[in-house]
Amino acid sequence: MITLYGDVTKTRANRCSWMLKEIGIDYVNEPLAFRPGAEKPAAFLALNPNGKCPTLQDGDLVLYESLAINLYLAKRYGGALGPQSPEEEALMMQWSFWVATEVEKPLLLTAAIRHLFEPKQPADEELAIAMKRLSRPFSALEQHLQDRDFILGDRFTAADLNVAAVMHFIPIAEIDVSTFTAMKRWLETCLDRPAAIDVQSVNFRVPTPKSSRDIFAMFV
Amino acid sequence: MITLYGDVTKTRANRCSWMLKEIGIDYVNEPLAFRPGAEKPAAFLALNPNGKCPTLQDGDLVLYESLAINLYLAKRYGGALGPQSPEEEALMMQWSFWVATEVEKPLLLTAAIRHLFEPKQPADEELAIAMKRLSRPFSALEQHLQDRDFILGDRFTAADLNVAAVMHFIPIAEIDVSTFTAMKRWLETCLDRPAAIDVQSVNFRVPTPKSSRDIFAMFV
Repeated sequence: MITLYGDVTKTRANRCSWMLKEIGIDYVNEPLAFRPGAEKPAAFLALNPNGKCPTLQDGDLVLYESLAINLYLAKRYGGALGPQSPEEEALMMQWSFWVATEVEKPLLLTAAIRHLFEPKQPADEELAIAMKRLSRPFSALEQHLQDRDFILGDRFTAADLNVAAVMHFIPIAEIDVSTFTAMKRWLETCLDRPAAIDVQSVNFRVPTPKSSRDIFAMFV
Repeated sequence: MITLYGDVTKTRANRCSWMLKEIGIDYVNEPLAFRPGAEKPAAFLALNPNGKCPTLQDGDLVLYESLAINLYLAKRYGGALGPQSPEEEALMMQWSFWVATEVEKPLLLTAAIRHLFEPKQPADEELAIAMKRLSRPFSALEQHLQDRDFILGDRFTAADLNVAAVMHFIPIAEIDVSTFTAMKRWLETCLDRPAAIDVQSVNFRVPTPKSSRDIFAMFV
């Protein structure tokens, strides 16, 4: 029995529900979400001392970190979504770390300014810094996708799912990536998949920080 | 033939040289390092369009992202350093993503203020914000290590190596973690390993940013 802890409209559990739906495996969702500073149930902290969603339980295995959960699920249950060789496995890990370390925080900052912060306030300088940070990884992915339909070649895999699941904020926050034509086409193809339903919208907003310093400090 | 691109005193190639030395495998090191804004050789950009070190070449496979490289090496060549079951493999990935997403940036910010920025300037408020951010993951690891010698149990694995290789800035920057006794003992045990020689010091400094905002913006 697989249980996915985390509200798929408010937490990164949406990344794992996408994978579970691609695989077509039965699972139970416990739609937990915690407001910043909220007390967390002891039973949940016993599963994951970090107190964060998503957390996955698969028999005796308890696992957290959304991208690690997806790599595990794809390999164990995902057939062609998972690696077919040690080289493919290495590349799926590489791209998953790449999106987490090169893309996620500046993209989330951009999405926050464009969409998640309430009340809305102009933050052009902060936006410019974040978009400049994103230009290198976006260019690298654009180049990689010049002669490939998907990240590993000609089939959709866990690498595409993990990278696109982080990049889902691009359409949600209407971030302009029109100059990255191959990346944009690839991202639309991924996010249009029926199993990607939970990453097609978000259902939370974040209080706008008081200063430019506080905006950046949120994402360190 | 394995080639590791990246200066082990100035780039995260030190994480991968640690793994290669643990395994005891032959490899060639190309000690590349680039100053911010420096032009990068076209031959290197052809290997890794992100232009970042470390990059590993193993036969036809070109791989980047230090923690993914280490997971690949441990599994393929590392014997007991690598996973012995799907569950162990999942946990090695989990802890590697955990340290990259929960620990790396606030720890690097702390290490920069304490050690890497030149000239030195007091930044107590920034330090307090970063240390507060670290208290949750440090507490989680402390709790996890209460009844285990190593992250996966009773042997040193790629999970320990990847987490400790990110945390190597704690002793280098003399960051006080004395209240996390199990974590401190574990980290010292890991970093004292002979193969860890390249993570025992760093040979670079970073110009101090002009404002508090710019300090945080560096690490987004």
